[in-house]
Amino acid sequence: MNDISSTIYEDNLKIISDLQDLIHIPSISAKKQNLLECAALVSQIMKKSGIDSEILFLDKEGKPSSHPSSTIPPIVFGQVKSKSNPTGPTLLFYNHYDVQPVDPIDLWDNAPFSGIVKGNYIFGRGSSDDKGELITRIKAVESILRDTGDVPCNIKFIVEGEEEIGSPNIVNYINAYREKFRSEKVIWEFGYIDEMEKPVISLGMKGLLFVELIAKGPSRDAHSSLAVLIKNPAWVLTHLLSTIFDRNGKITIKDWYKDIQKPTPEELQIINQELFDEKEFQKQYGISEFLGNIHGNEVKKALSTYPTCNIAGLFSGYIEEGAKTVLPSKAIAKLDFRLVPNMDPAKQLKLLQTHIKENGFENNIDINVIHSEPASKTSINDPFVKLVEDSASDIFGSVNKTISSSGTGPMFAFNDILGSPSVSVGCTYIYSKIHSPNEFMRLDLLFKTVDLMKLIINRFSSLYT
Amino acid sequence: MNDISSTIYEDNLKIISDLQDLIHIPSISAKKQNLLECAALVSQIMKKSGIDSEILFLDKEGKPSSHPSSTIPPIVFGQVKSKSNPTGPTLLFYNHYDVQPVDPIDLWDNAPFSGIVKGNYIFGRGSSDDKGELITRIKAVESILRDTGDVPCNIKFIVEGEEEIGSPNIVNYINAYREKFRSEKVIWEFGYIDEMEKPVISLGMKGLLFVELIAKGPSRDAHSSLAVLIKNPAWVLTHLLSTIFDRNGKITIKDWYKDIQKPTPEELQIINQELFDEKEFQKQYGISEFLGNIHGNEVKKALSTYPTCNIAGLFSGYIEEGAKTVLPSKAIAKLDFRLVPNMDPAKQLKLLQTHIKENGFENNIDINVIHSEPASKTSINDPFVKLVEDSASDIFGSVNKTISSSGTGPMFAFNDILGSPSVSVGCTYIYSKIHSPNEFMRLDLLFKTVDLMKLIINRFSSLYT
Repeated sequence: MNDISSTIYEDNLKIISDLQDLIHIPSISAKKQNLLECAALVSQIMKKSGIDSEILFLDKEGKPSSHPSSTIPPIVFGQVKSKSNPTGPTLLFYNHYDVQPVDPIDLWDNAPFSGIVKGNYIFGRGSSDDKGELITRIKAVESILRDTGDVPCNIKFIVEGEEEIGSPNIVNYINAYREKFRSEKVIWEFGYIDEMEKPVISLGMKGLLFVELIAKGPSRDAHSSLAVLIKNPAWVLTHLLSTIFDRNGKITIKDWYKDIQKPTPEELQIINQELFDEKEFQKQYGISEFLGNIHGNEVKKALSTYPTCNIAGLFSGYIEEGAKTVLPSKAIAKLDFRLVPNMDPAKQLKLLQTHIKENGFENNIDINVIHSEPASKTSINDPFVKLVEDSASDIFGSVNKTISSSGTGPMFAFNDILGSPSVSVGCTYIYSKIHSPNEFMRLDLLFKTVDLMKLIINRFSSLYT
Repeated sequence: MNDISSTIYEDNLKIISDLQDLIHIPSISAKKQNLLECAALVSQIMKKSGIDSEILFLDKEGKPSSHPSSTIPPIVFGQVKSKSNPTGPTLLFYNHYDVQPVDPIDLWDNAPFSGIVKGNYIFGRGSSDDKGELITRIKAVESILRDTGDVPCNIKFIVEGEEEIGSPNIVNYINAYREKFRSEKVIWEFGYIDEMEKPVISLGMKGLLFVELIAKGPSRDAHSSLAVLIKNPAWVLTHLLSTIFDRNGKITIKDWYKDIQKPTPEELQIINQELFDEKEFQKQYGISEFLGNIHGNEVKKALSTYPTCNIAGLFSGYIEEGAKTVLPSKAIAKLDFRLVPNMDPAKQLKLLQTHIKENGFENNIDINVIHSEPASKTSINDPFVKLVEDSASDIFGSVNKTISSSGTGPMFAFNDILGSPSVSVGCTYIYSKIHSPNEFMRLDLLFKTVDLMKLIINRFSSLYT
């Protein structure tokens, strides 16, 4: 009962159990739900794993505070100082304890926060994004501490509670706790495992501009027979939207693409070397072609370097079963624009506002900015990139490298504000349904990623000798 | 305590009390909710008022049945034979016991089915449309029976349970119970009282084509970062919609207006004589101009004779508070097209289908037809029209006459299938918020309309002598 394999087996059971505890807390940041509770649990798990942990608060002025705020969720900070190398470099793990909403809830096979294990899978909102990823980092540190009584480099953790709503306070936190967060490099909160079972080392994140466009109609819902006289705000919204994005997938706002920094020849070479299984992707999403009917290298280039304009939500009037003949008093579209390097969110917002005005919609449309952040990327020549790449190759056989994820995260806050370049690597299977019903984590990837994180920690100091 | 005014006072309290009982039952046909229960109550109130009543069922084949159907709500039939004139003419009252859904529920000041009385108003879904109207017809018959022990003409009632979802079975009911329903003329289920306190005698109803357009995207919701590759069904829907209806308020489906029967010079004269307070209408709905910026006679012409294309509902993706970066798997628009005389719903549907195909959307869009029915109208020269008009003038001082309501109802089923021309007159104040939160009935109009219905009944036989 005391040999190595049974220890590993028991370790793995503890990883699953801690992950389940995290999944059970429905910490949905969009609804400001159970965030303090989840932060407390993360801190408790860290302490249990030998990591010094404290919960950091911020006041409305963006200053450190000793009290929880009703509007700004806390950051869980973790730290282990290396006894053997206390003045050496610091590796920072950035993660988040908040999750996406769970609707449409009727499409979940199990309760969204069940954490139920079936074979090689653990199901639940947050199982991959990001509680699963987080637990691999904590357990790697725990394992090294238990094996050696020390860590070979200084370790820090920043676990925030607003990543899924665009990390509106991460820059303020970094400015407020700059000294505490000081570090050399960052392991990002997630990394994909692609359909060929290779970890994807990603060196950048796209930016995001998330807005609500609200069309205002009559002061109250009216009987739809009055559509002969009253302008329907759902039509106004539809007409506006059709001027923003065309049927070929192009954003038709004037100058939208103007500031984009094109990928360098070196970056293009990396893009062309990426592996991407188009058929498998299309099968997974039940589609028969890509937007704009692109193929091959252009598909990979799109994922890393194209901006988007996506309708994330559309609402007006009566949306339940059957018929209701109503002329709605308002109509709302939630739009998310992904931004790529050199697009300034404030400038792009201005372009959108100008577009609305110049197309004659300004009296009927309100814009509500939910979130904005710029893109960021780590240099492909940073030696930390090679360290992570080599470590992942050693554990997984080979890797797939990309200059930018297709998604968004506050990488600019770490790369550009804190000054610690970030590399994304992790255990999120590419079809693990993050942000969708039945999100899952693959247990084999969870355990392998603990090993990968241990390897990265053990090798990290070598960059500085 | 026994003088006339106290009898009137007690009568009025009983009208309110019976109406409240009806409002308390949330008989929402769109949700097939509490329909049998409401039919039973209507029948009970009729019997209490001296009206023979039975509940009629229909089987799936459209034949009379003695059992309730799970899919087809019953019709409450009522009848009083005239003792003095048993072979004389029959006046039919057509009403409905079903109501519209109540959302958005948070905009109601009181519970939607409260039936609460405040001053001259009784609030609740159905208070005007159509339980309030129904109770005036029943109470008029009750009053005449109590005063004279007889009715001067034969009376029939048809009270159906699917008017708010487009009366899908009324034609089948009429065909199945044709002999029972035989009648000379019909008093329609509602009539407006306009902002100048005049009853609106309406001689027609528009038709309706209510469809859902469903855009199909990926097989499941995806992370919105994949919008670089996956076609978003909300964009597909938006692009389709913008080809259907233009910013000037015109339907841009080829040949949509082709079959329309234009109003005759005689009808146009009636339209031009109508009174319509544009400023008050605009104030009520909080708008500053009419669709297409029309004025004067064209506004009235639009209400009576223009077809519409209205977005009654729009749904895709995440519609709750805040941000969720999702690429939805589907998007739905609920569209209601009002049709005017000579537009065949089946033919118009075909035009819509052709439009979808010719604009390249047929592989991405499903059409789900929720309901369709043609327009209908009663001749402006029918002597029954004058009888109703004169009676309403006697009670209200003067009337406003229109060749067609802007709304839809199964008038064709009575005018053209049963062969009994219909005239719409009633007690629904034009701003009583039917189909909206805080629907109400004005008590003064309720009581006056009982008197009007008595006058119509008492004069009806004179048309046939």
